[in-house]
Amino acid sequence: MSPHPSSASPTGHWRHLRLDRSEGVATVTLDRPDRLNALTFGAYADLRDLLAELAREGDTRALVLGGAGRGFCSGGDVEEIIGATLAMSAGELLDFTRMTGQVVRAIREAPFPVIAAVHGVAAGAGAVLALASDFRIVEPGARFAFLFTRVGLAGADMGAAYLLPRLVGLGHATRLLMLGDAVDAAEAERIGLVSQTAPEGGAHAAAAALARKLADGPALAYRQTKALLTAELDMPLGAAVEMDAAAQALLMTSADYAEFHAAFTARREPEWEGR
Amino acid sequence: MSPHPSSASPTGHWRHLRLDRSEGVATVTLDRPDRLNALTFGAYADLRDLLAELAREGDTRALVLGGAGRGFCSGGDVEEIIGATLAMSAGELLDFTRMTGQVVRAIREAPFPVIAAVHGVAAGAGAVLALASDFRIVEPGARFAFLFTRVGLAGADMGAAYLLPRLVGLGHATRLLMLGDAVDAAEAERIGLVSQTAPEGGAHAAAAALARKLADGPALAYRQTKALLTAELDMPLGAAVEMDAAAQALLMTSADYAEFHAAFTARREPEWEGR
Amino acid sequence: MSPHPSSASPTGHWRHLRLDRSEGVATVTLDRPDRLNALTFGAYADLRDLLAELAREGDTRALVLGGAGRGFCSGGDVEEIIGATLAMSAGELLDFTRMTGQVVRAIREAPFPVIAAVHGVAAGAGAVLALASDFRIVEPGARFAFLFTRVGLAGADMGAAYLLPRLVGLGHATRLLMLGDAVDAAEAERIGLVSQTAPEGGAHAAAAALARKLADGPALAYRQTKALLTAELDMPLGAAVEMDAAAQALLMTSADYAEFHAAFTARREPEWEGR
Repeated sequence: MSPHPSSASPTGHWRHLRLDRSEGVATVTLDRPDRLNALTFGAYADLRDLLAELAREGDTRALVLGGAGRGFCSGGDVEEIIGATLAMSAGELLDFTRMTGQVVRAIREAPFPVIAAVHGVAAGAGAVLALASDFRIVEPGARFAFLFTRVGLAGADMGAAYLLPRLVGLGHATRLLMLGDAVDAAEAERIGLVSQTAPEGGAHAAAAALARKLADGPALAYRQTKALLTAELDMPLGAAVEMDAAAQALLMTSADYAEFHAAFTARREPEWEGR
Repeated sequence: MSPHPSSASPTGHWRHLRLDRSEGVATVTLDRPDRLNALTFGAYADLRDLLAELAREGDTRALVLGGAGRGFCSGGDVEEIIGATLAMSAGELLDFTRMTGQVVRAIREAPFPVIAAVHGVAAGAGAVLALASDFRIVEPGARFAFLFTRVGLAGADMGAAYLLPRLVGLGHATRLLMLGDAVDAAEAERIGLVSQTAPEGGAHAAAAALARKLADGPALAYRQTKALLTAELDMPLGAAVEMDAAAQALLMTSADYAEFHAAFTARREPEWEGR
Repeated sequence: MSPHPSSASPTGHWRHLRLDRSEGVATVTLDRPDRLNALTFGAYADLRDLLAELAREGDTRALVLGGAGRGFCSGGDVEEIIGATLAMSAGELLDFTRMTGQVVRAIREAPFPVIAAVHGVAAGAGAVLALASDFRIVEPGARFAFLFTRVGLAGADMGAAYLLPRLVGLGHATRLLMLGDAVDAAEAERIGLVSQTAPEGGAHAAAAALARKLADGPALAYRQTKALLTAELDMPLGAAVEMDAAAQALLMTSADYAEFHAAFTARREPEWEGR
């Protein structure tokens, strides 16, 4: 429960994706398997608003993002999105592209870790959703493709030109974003795109297990770690060190820090409260 | 052709390097094979002005940078440059070192991808020219050496201390720039310095093939991808996402984006115009 | 000797660590082997003040940081530090966390390279000390663990959330800082945490050899390389290139640069003075 509820009502039903919730873990499934979970305008809007709502509400401690059927996500739907944008005015185009970027910011700024369970194709905007996540659990048959230039657009979509160099270095990022070539799981692991591998068909189970572990652990510490990783990419060393000092001093007053010490002293496992 | 020609005349002949042009591809060859293409004052000045002129003129869609003879480039010429700088005043030294940095900025800010075809030695300033390029196509016998400290200078030459950590991480960059040890092709690939490998003797052909593909492809999309990769290294996430949104909305009005959709719908290959 | 001595007296004896000095090389040993060199308040304070004093004094050209006994450093002492912080006020907590950050800044801003000789465990604050060093010489049996979340704190401790993504990329850094899992030497090497490997039991000798080489070499060039690597992580490309130009022009007036040219011309090895 949020300590600061506003008048806004929770959404009764998310029409463009599937949401399951269980004891602090939210599982979001892109669910158009017949179209390899290609994103529609509605799916972007739902992702944007769902992440904001979960952040506001405060009960989510970890989120799994995955796709139904044969793959993770094939990116923006060619018919529904590319076709439609060709008829749009400048302002309408910007409304759309800004919305896609807001999804990436919402993932990076969510007050809980986001775990992408990647099987099969993660292409275009789908690859960026995985890139923006905190963890990518990847099956051997998965492949990433930042194929924006293949449709005549810039490789810099939804923050990919910011994020990818910070994960795999500018050299690999230039190659992947400029050429749009597919990256198989082995190469993805070699260059730093993979957080954890899973056996074929096992990404969703592995993601669920990691989410459960994170939700049952010192969730405040995890949340703070994510927030500082995100912020310190954009900060100079001196400011980052200062920020760490204040953040860590605050966490030293948390229940979980005291619990660790009590458990250590009593030679038992800590019982984390996540606060 | 530039849409905005000024009164400046094009250069009739580049005396310190070789320039070949063919349908949107410029091939620049460092051409002092008897000195392993060691750079002279004139070569730096020609690189600076050539890149500016090509950018202004607007017909170049991809540029290949390579070396004649046994290697790519052995760096600043010990006699012509180190010897001469020992007799220079403070202002003259700065004129020289700023010129070398302008070459790196010109590569990074050129409105077309730059492909370094690296065979044999890429040392000192030669290693930085390759580092600043968008693609490094590397033969098995190639080696990089950021050997500035070996001549008593800082490893931070021509932006190397900015660029190298962003390609290979701060740990490797510190080791390479501090010690000036040679990096063979296998290590270069392992740490992220290689975009593509080529068989021995094959870097120039592979670079030409990639340049042709880029020049015949959606060149505006490539150019924009490069510009955003360069800019977003220096931007916070929020600004980068905002910049992507505006850039992508603009590209959604381009001829190539419409062509992709038309070709996709007609089940044919797109015919890119590069605009 | 510092060219600018103040009235401050040098410290006669460092009580919380061991310091050995020999011809430009300072060797700092964390020396509580019965506690795996767990850090105490005094050890943090001594590290902070020792680094400042060596920087001020000006005779140190390289520093080795290592641990006595079975490992490098197990991090902050659970009894002396975690126990004590539980009883602290907000201001006292901040005094402590800011001090730990000052140690990291002192390492990154020291006017000499710092070499961590890592054997056995480098955990918590110990892992960050190694991370902040310029070189990590690592034995096969070494392991790193950024285990802050395991005690209920943020993974962003002492600048780790700033530094680690800049060495190994955001993906690996998120995994290591969020989960606190141990990283063995093989994985550390694969992701970019290792500067040089040493045989089991050989990290201290290898670190001493590298420190000797750095101290006997062009030390001004090394010091400048480190300063620019540190600064340019936080600078845009244009400013970095401008800074390199001025720094390099200055070094072109140094004794070592002239000595390189004289030695090269006379076909002999340079005799570096480090200035």
